[in-house]
Amino acid sequence: MKLALIGFGTVGQGLAEILRDKAADLQDKEGFDAQIVAVVTRARGSLYRPDGLDIPALLGAMERGSLSHYPDQTGLQRDWDAAKIARESSADVLVEVSPSNLQTGQPALDLCYAALDSGKHVVLANKGPVAAAYGELRQRAEKAGKRLLFEATVMAGTPSLRLGMQALVGCKIAEARGILNGTTNYILTRMEGGMSYAEALAQAQQLGYAEADPTADVDGWDAAAKAIILSAALFNQRLTFEDMDVKGISQITAQDIEAARAAGQRWKLIARVTPEGGSVQPLRLPNDHPLASVSGSTNAVTYSTDLLGEVTLVGSGAGRQQTGFGLLSDLLDIHRLWRS
Amino acid sequence: MKLALIGFGTVGQGLAEILRDKAADLQDKEGFDAQIVAVVTRARGSLYRPDGLDIPALLGAMERGSLSHYPDQTGLQRDWDAAKIARESSADVLVEVSPSNLQTGQPALDLCYAALDSGKHVVLANKGPVAAAYGELRQRAEKAGKRLLFEATVMAGTPSLRLGMQALVGCKIAEARGILNGTTNYILTRMEGGMSYAEALAQAQQLGYAEADPTADVDGWDAAAKAIILSAALFNQRLTFEDMDVKGISQITAQDIEAARAAGQRWKLIARVTPEGGSVQPLRLPNDHPLASVSGSTNAVTYSTDLLGEVTLVGSGAGRQQTGFGLLSDLLDIHRLWRS
Repeated sequence: MKLALIGFGTVGQGLAEILRDKAADLQDKEGFDAQIVAVVTRARGSLYRPDGLDIPALLGAMERGSLSHYPDQTGLQRDWDAAKIARESSADVLVEVSPSNLQTGQPALDLCYAALDSGKHVVLANKGPVAAAYGELRQRAEKAGKRLLFEATVMAGTPSLRLGMQALVGCKIAEARGILNGTTNYILTRMEGGMSYAEALAQAQQLGYAEADPTADVDGWDAAAKAIILSAALFNQRLTFEDMDVKGISQITAQDIEAARAAGQRWKLIARVTPEGGSVQPLRLPNDHPLASVSGSTNAVTYSTDLLGEVTLVGSGAGRQQTGFGLLSDLLDIHRLWRS
Repeated sequence: MKLALIGFGTVGQGLAEILRDKAADLQDKEGFDAQIVAVVTRARGSLYRPDGLDIPALLGAMERGSLSHYPDQTGLQRDWDAAKIARESSADVLVEVSPSNLQTGQPALDLCYAALDSGKHVVLANKGPVAAAYGELRQRAEKAGKRLLFEATVMAGTPSLRLGMQALVGCKIAEARGILNGTTNYILTRMEGGMSYAEALAQAQQLGYAEADPTADVDGWDAAAKAIILSAALFNQRLTFEDMDVKGISQITAQDIEAARAAGQRWKLIARVTPEGGSVQPLRLPNDHPLASVSGSTNAVTYSTDLLGEVTLVGSGAGRQQTGFGLLSDLLDIHRLWRS
């Protein structure tokens, strides 16, 4: 399986490391043999080599700051841009791991279209294209007879989508709700430990959980994008940000936290989707609620189903190898259908 | 897909009800069309009809106490025993849902062998055969080129095995631990509410959670059987009951519960397996441990993995339709591979 990576930051490098470290194991147990044939970054160069790139050399080049440090090899191209890679490369799968633009999904969205239209599968960790245009992407994938997979966009590699879309097939899901943003959950947990909102946010930024501009996290937009993706995946519903009631945690005070504690409750930023719509809201949950004990940067989702009642999945919602695994699990899914 | 059901108690009837209620939906969405061609009970008769049995009539007959009340139909046989059904019927899948004998797996185990050897897939809710002889069953299934699936044996239909064996493929699982017996968890939760062990057990029996002879639950053997199944499925390891350190909850007193509460902890009966072995033990968990908040008859399992860290699944561990769904999800899994 030949892969083209659009973006080669933390997540893309995480996938590359897993492919390097698990190559023998994946070959033995799953008959899975993947090769990175292209890597395109916005400002740190581009590489394309139909016979495959060397993963240690890719990672080494990035450590030195740019793909320009990748050694020359027969057949190596350094001048293909992302659009040309998506359209004309020999990759079987386009792996889109560039930063998300949640509103438009661009420029990633056009690359996904180009890849599907030219007969490539598309696997994403980038939420933007799926949140902005799931319906159109789905249609193009079906028309091309190719797969569109995006496990890593919700709860990183914790298999939230695979649970809802595959393992629960046969159940009717009436609602999904969860803690889908680790940064805000970390801040709320720190505030329970006595910090002010500002202190907790500063610590989250120091630890790399929150961006320098934390708006997308603390105002609920990251959780909302994930809710839109869940809604598309579970209910085939085209929600937009405008359709949703979205509220973040920046108004929550130490007094609010203390009042909840006194009542045996905890504040959690809860994203919720049903076939009718969706919302992101800070809610006070009783301490014995399954989502109340989900602490720190951990994420969780609860599916309400007709046959099983409530099914809750708890796990990591971010991280280099966690998100890398989300991509790998999609690649393995494509591989299984190929093989059979 | 033609099904032969061995056993037609709560679980078998649960599956039949789901097949009746979801027939159109499963046909539309999954292209799945299942027919029950045989039902065999120990003391309430046997039916075999190659052209399919009528589900409402089957359920109606059982309501009246026996399959002898099922109306006559062309081609209906009432005298095939389980062994003959397993060997000679036209079923594609043997669905083994008779009560478990945890030590020997019999008589179900021989029926599973017969079904596999004569070219049928085997799907089980009955823990006995899998706990007693997973290795041999696996071998016979491979030799026959047929599937052996048993999602319903651990946490009913909550997809604990599908999570560990499919959704986490690519991760290395170092340990599974969980609350795998709902009866004991219900008793412990009631004791936290102030009941004595004897009162809580009596209430569990009244609600149908615990058998008249509660030994298998309260002494940990049911959880141990599930741990053996997890160990087989995840680590391909042949644990026996003798290999495991198994302790139940019958020695836990109101004082123990109170001492834990005072320390911010809760007693839980925790089953644990690693590639090296397994155990079932009552343990005191801190209140903020992911398994501590799993209350009542709910079950949960945590997988410790290399790439994702800890992944926890929480859901129902018993029930008519929950276990019926576990069987359905295995049948859909077989169907998907057939179709592709």
